[in-house]
Amino acid sequence: MKKLVLAYSGGLDTSYCAKYLSKEEGFEVNAVSVNTGGFSKAEITSIQQKALDLGATSYTSINAISNFYEKVVKYLVFGNVLKNNTYPLSVSAERIVQAIEIVNHAKKIGANYIAHGSTGAGNDQVRFDMIFQIIAPEIEIITPIRDNKLSREAEIAYLQKNGVDYPWEKAKYSINRGLWGTSVGGDETLTSHLPLPETAYPSQLEKEFSKELKLSFKKGELTAIDGESATPVENIEKLSEIAAKYAIGRDIHVGDTIIGIKGRVGFEAAAPLIIIKAHHLLEKHTLSKWQQYQKEQLGNFYGMLLHEGNYLDEVMRNIEVFLEDTQKNVTGDVFVTLHPYRFELNGISSKNDLMNASFGSYGEMNKGWTANDAKGFIKILSNSGKIANHVNQSND
Amino acid sequence: MKKLVLAYSGGLDTSYCAKYLSKEEGFEVNAVSVNTGGFSKAEITSIQQKALDLGATSYTSINAISNFYEKVVKYLVFGNVLKNNTYPLSVSAERIVQAIEIVNHAKKIGANYIAHGSTGAGNDQVRFDMIFQIIAPEIEIITPIRDNKLSREAEIAYLQKNGVDYPWEKAKYSINRGLWGTSVGGDETLTSHLPLPETAYPSQLEKEFSKELKLSFKKGELTAIDGESATPVENIEKLSEIAAKYAIGRDIHVGDTIIGIKGRVGFEAAAPLIIIKAHHLLEKHTLSKWQQYQKEQLGNFYGMLLHEGNYLDEVMRNIEVFLEDTQKNVTGDVFVTLHPYRFELNGISSKNDLMNASFGSYGEMNKGWTANDAKGFIKILSNSGKIANHVNQSND
Amino acid sequence: MKKLVLAYSGGLDTSYCAKYLSKEEGFEVNAVSVNTGGFSKAEITSIQQKALDLGATSYTSINAISNFYEKVVKYLVFGNVLKNNTYPLSVSAERIVQAIEIVNHAKKIGANYIAHGSTGAGNDQVRFDMIFQIIAPEIEIITPIRDNKLSREAEIAYLQKNGVDYPWEKAKYSINRGLWGTSVGGDETLTSHLPLPETAYPSQLEKEFSKELKLSFKKGELTAIDGESATPVENIEKLSEIAAKYAIGRDIHVGDTIIGIKGRVGFEAAAPLIIIKAHHLLEKHTLSKWQQYQKEQLGNFYGMLLHEGNYLDEVMRNIEVFLEDTQKNVTGDVFVTLHPYRFELNGISSKNDLMNASFGSYGEMNKGWTANDAKGFIKILSNSGKIANHVNQSND
Amino acid sequence: MKKLVLAYSGGLDTSYCAKYLSKEEGFEVNAVSVNTGGFSKAEITSIQQKALDLGATSYTSINAISNFYEKVVKYLVFGNVLKNNTYPLSVSAERIVQAIEIVNHAKKIGANYIAHGSTGAGNDQVRFDMIFQIIAPEIEIITPIRDNKLSREAEIAYLQKNGVDYPWEKAKYSINRGLWGTSVGGDETLTSHLPLPETAYPSQLEKEFSKELKLSFKKGELTAIDGESATPVENIEKLSEIAAKYAIGRDIHVGDTIIGIKGRVGFEAAAPLIIIKAHHLLEKHTLSKWQQYQKEQLGNFYGMLLHEGNYLDEVMRNIEVFLEDTQKNVTGDVFVTLHPYRFELNGISSKNDLMNASFGSYGEMNKGWTANDAKGFIKILSNSGKIANHVNQSND
Repeated sequence: MKKLVLAYSGGLDTSYCAKYLSKEEGFEVNAVSVNTGGFSKAEITSIQQKALDLGATSYTSINAISNFYEKVVKYLVFGNVLKNNTYPLSVSAERIVQAIEIVNHAKKIGANYIAHGSTGAGNDQVRFDMIFQIIAPEIEIITPIRDNKLSREAEIAYLQKNGVDYPWEKAKYSINRGLWGTSVGGDETLTSHLPLPETAYPSQLEKEFSKELKLSFKKGELTAIDGESATPVENIEKLSEIAAKYAIGRDIHVGDTIIGIKGRVGFEAAAPLIIIKAHHLLEKHTLSKWQQYQKEQLGNFYGMLLHEGNYLDEVMRNIEVFLEDTQKNVTGDVFVTLHPYRFELNGISSKNDLMNASFGSYGEMNKGWTANDAKGFIKILSNSGKIANHVNQSND
Repeated sequence: MKKLVLAYSGGLDTSYCAKYLSKEEGFEVNAVSVNTGGFSKAEITSIQQKALDLGATSYTSINAISNFYEKVVKYLVFGNVLKNNTYPLSVSAERIVQAIEIVNHAKKIGANYIAHGSTGAGNDQVRFDMIFQIIAPEIEIITPIRDNKLSREAEIAYLQKNGVDYPWEKAKYSINRGLWGTSVGGDETLTSHLPLPETAYPSQLEKEFSKELKLSFKKGELTAIDGESATPVENIEKLSEIAAKYAIGRDIHVGDTIIGIKGRVGFEAAAPLIIIKAHHLLEKHTLSKWQQYQKEQLGNFYGMLLHEGNYLDEVMRNIEVFLEDTQKNVTGDVFVTLHPYRFELNGISSKNDLMNASFGSYGEMNKGWTANDAKGFIKILSNSGKIANHVNQSND
Repeated sequence: MKKLVLAYSGGLDTSYCAKYLSKEEGFEVNAVSVNTGGFSKAEITSIQQKALDLGATSYTSINAISNFYEKVVKYLVFGNVLKNNTYPLSVSAERIVQAIEIVNHAKKIGANYIAHGSTGAGNDQVRFDMIFQIIAPEIEIITPIRDNKLSREAEIAYLQKNGVDYPWEKAKYSINRGLWGTSVGGDETLTSHLPLPETAYPSQLEKEFSKELKLSFKKGELTAIDGESATPVENIEKLSEIAAKYAIGRDIHVGDTIIGIKGRVGFEAAAPLIIIKAHHLLEKHTLSKWQQYQKEQLGNFYGMLLHEGNYLDEVMRNIEVFLEDTQKNVTGDVFVTLHPYRFELNGISSKNDLMNASFGSYGEMNKGWTANDAKGFIKILSNSGKIANHVNQSND
Repeated sequence: MKKLVLAYSGGLDTSYCAKYLSKEEGFEVNAVSVNTGGFSKAEITSIQQKALDLGATSYTSINAISNFYEKVVKYLVFGNVLKNNTYPLSVSAERIVQAIEIVNHAKKIGANYIAHGSTGAGNDQVRFDMIFQIIAPEIEIITPIRDNKLSREAEIAYLQKNGVDYPWEKAKYSINRGLWGTSVGGDETLTSHLPLPETAYPSQLEKEFSKELKLSFKKGELTAIDGESATPVENIEKLSEIAAKYAIGRDIHVGDTIIGIKGRVGFEAAAPLIIIKAHHLLEKHTLSKWQQYQKEQLGNFYGMLLHEGNYLDEVMRNIEVFLEDTQKNVTGDVFVTLHPYRFELNGISSKNDLMNASFGSYGEMNKGWTANDAKGFIKILSNSGKIANHVNQSND
């Protein structure tokens, strides 16, 4: 029999796939959903029920939160990665890990086919297909939605005809939730000029007053909040919960899709933004100028390739060891204040702080060098400019 | 006689220089102050009076605001330059233009000496000296404060002894104001962990309610606010005034000084931050992916060299023409909302918008290509990964 | 009638296209060949005769040598572009200009179709199709060889059946000649370990003794050889002729194709290599360290995008103005000695030489600065390392 | 007593230092020479004798060849580092390791002073002093040659007066020999236009006929020559000996010194150039496009910082782990032919070769994808250009 793994989310598109592929195309449909932080237990139970109702032979829920953190999120923090200086790559990063989990699952159960519900116009099809094809070129990829361009109405009609009658009301905003943030798409994001309304965002302002937090990092990873130690994943979840009540971390990402068109998507990512900015501040105190310079370039590049689904390129592993190596001294506390809709970084405290060395301080003359040293320094620093100016002037 | 130009600000250090150099060292002191946006007319009159009182032979106030914009600020906008992702280089940028104006003035009046009040521990001495030495290596640089490491008390005592009795009370915060932002130094910025108190910032919150603004850019320059055209300089000044009442654009810059130590300085730069972020958003809609990629790298590099006083390196001119050339299509309106302490970018409208092309839209299947095209695209995009994975697996 | 422009080279593949498209598919075939330096007059006459014999309605030979130089070659020199440090992008660069000329020709004569003879496995199809689609998306692209995967034998049989009986013996090596070098493919280049035999290269060693040459550059362009002025194109042609007799400039390029597989191709490019290396040496004497640093990065990137057919991306124009601006002072003579199979750069002479400034010389103490200046310089240069070492040690 | 370590080479300058510092300045002079591949046993014995004759209390010869390879040379190979595309950084790289060995020796024997013979005009003073100051800021640096600007004649006179009468005839060319190449300075290198005469180079042509070699790399390191395994250091030495007879690897480096002036220095570095070029070719077959792209940028940067004495910056460690990680698959044989004055790379053989995959081959249609896949690929690759062209045209 034709054994197939279906990346199943419980939504209309993949529900259509589940029914259609099992009933019309004769596949043994093994539904799988990969949790990278977006699903509650109740949701998983409900997804499972749906999958089996729709004709899936099996349903598997893979908890990939920890893998997601270890394989991707960690490096996004190390690299302070914000795509186009804005977007923490919430969805892009998830898709990679989901694809890897799915293809590994397919290999494990000996499936010959993988199906997913992507259309032919977005980034996700590229991220999924590339990883499937690279890791398991022998597995065929099935994408009914992309191939048949069915309308919502046609999908619902087909499901109803086959006795499936869930309430498929179209949400006004399509939401994708995960450990590293939530994306929000809607009518406004199809325009260039309209912002999302406040109500489109999943979290709403609940707090009026400010709150101070101490984020503790150890070698670049968030290991404690207000002195309470936990795993980085737990800390991200905790911080998300705290900061959500302040409606922090909303913005709209405008970027180039892999297929060459511009796209616009809203997101809410309080914890990612606070963590990246706090981590970045700690680095300003603990890394050399050139470390920061190269991290900026490599972090941006890493984000670009990740966003475009090139996670499996060997250069990504090379950059990861680079980034990890830069974190040796990125240890210390960062003091943050949450306000409604925004946060402030107050400062840091670190035994690796290169600023608080007794050595000398900015703007104050000190024992490390004399006025003459400074003058010699500047004189020699001016040499190349002096020569160039001299040579050029003589030629004018 | 020994003809000297003194970069004069009206502060204690340069006032000491004016008296000391004219009286003790026998210089003909020609005081000059270069206005890059920080001085009002009344302040200039008062500075002039002081300079002459202190023994200066002449006083000249140079209005360099427009030069400042044309030579530096313009490119900082084109390059979306925020040092370490935070600081619009308010002071660094000013010093460059001030130094150039001063040395040109010195050449014009035939001075053999230039004096300034920098200490031996900061960036400004490097920026000033480098530009003086490169443009006019024949002029000798005189820096009494750096050379003699006098205390405030000693300076005041000397001035009093010489009949000068201004009220030199030390401000709690040292402020440097200019077109492109205001820097704020104080006790807190000498630590790593303390933020500046609200009162340290020159502008205080006056507005409670939000305000919408339309910023219009033409080839990357801010040409109108809410439909009212003006020069970019006027628009920056206007936006500064509007946004100041919202207490927007405060932050602390932590960076590496040219002399190799870390420094921390507060700043308030509402207009620069709003303009750069709005401009950047417009670029996301109007530039290609690779333009944005290279702009990011070259913009950062330009900022680094500018910050370190390397403005005269020829590579800066090369980068400027690059940046200018990228702005051909950066024309359109950006919609901004000001809130207390923060602002939001709502969206843009531009005839050069690459997103609103009738061509196709993100996430929706369209006429530009078929599912098979997308699948062919992804298949071939996977080639290199597929081969690498195949070769590596065979070797394992 | 269906009006079609065929990129015609006179070879078997495009001859098949000419006959097949005019006879079987009912196209009005307008053959066109674009000369970027590879064709002699006699060859063009012979190509024209063939085209008309095969059923083409018209034949046009476009001389694009000068355009090729102005649009591409010039910038490859300014950027010292050698792909993977080896290959002057001889063919890649030609294809771009050929594609632009062809599509412009098609638009001029109102053609609705463009046909070319590329297969589905190489870079050329991408370069051609991308430029055609971007500049004239309304024109349909026809590629019989790619679509039908015909064998040589099948093509010859078809032509013979239709009364065309040229001697289509397969050359042992496929050669592509142009202004900026000649590529050579053969059995050996399909392996990883075999070099091309000497006889595979079009030029053979004719000279035994060395020859000195003076190459004169003006703002980065080759304006004279041994004191004789000519246009850069003429100088490239002249230098090619001189250097070919020394069998200089042979190598094998190993690179990543646009479609993701590795490829290997031999080339002979005496003039391009001599010019680039001579030009680069002149730049070492006339540019600042940072100009060279950024040129290296942008030159490599420019070569990568050009190679991959991305010539029309706006970033290419931005980089071109950057590169052009860096050439302001790249003026002077470079002294070269040609030997059998190799050449040496002896030195340069330039009024813009930053080394020969009376200012100071390497390794010799001089008047520009004192021992104390040097010591101050180094002391302050050591600051950041000193602090980092101190802070780290305290933590160990 | 004032305990001092003197970096002693046996030359005039450091011999002067040995006598002067022990006799006139009352130092206990502990001479040390660090062998990074330049000294034979006989030379070391002779240096030792001289040092003790001149008044040194002790003499230590440190064999740092292996350290030199492990700490620096290895990464120069991994990064294919050729400064300005020419110079393998022979001397620059040595100085770093010599400085580290010297300062460690000084700490070991409890010295309070380190002396070296550098002048105030070159790079070496910076490389030495920076490393000394960073690692041991408590040790004072003594540089009589730099401080006193003595002429050769004055030094010889002083030594003769003190009974030291070595034959100090000035060599026509100053030679610095080491594992990673030999530098050659002379009258010609003080000009911009003159090459070094053949006789200036230490190795002279002895072979007339070509010789084939097989270089075997394992994870980027040279592990065998012609099938004979040895350590990388032994292989470098062996290859140097073989290639020297072909007079390979001569060139002149023109570069920017740390103190801002341009310098020119000849070098002979047969083994480094052959190894780097062979290694680079192997990488073209075994690394992804993006690995090569990032390696190029980081390799160049690493070379720049090394050259400028910034070896101790933490970013260098970060880049080293990056480079090392890229070498996982850089394993295989490279076939090289040596000719008089030049060498050719014939090809490679590697189980990690990404080109020889049965997957597909360049220029030949294959089973991996269809013509339609290729057309879909190109169509979607053209999207962004198509849109940009469309939007721009509408605006014209």
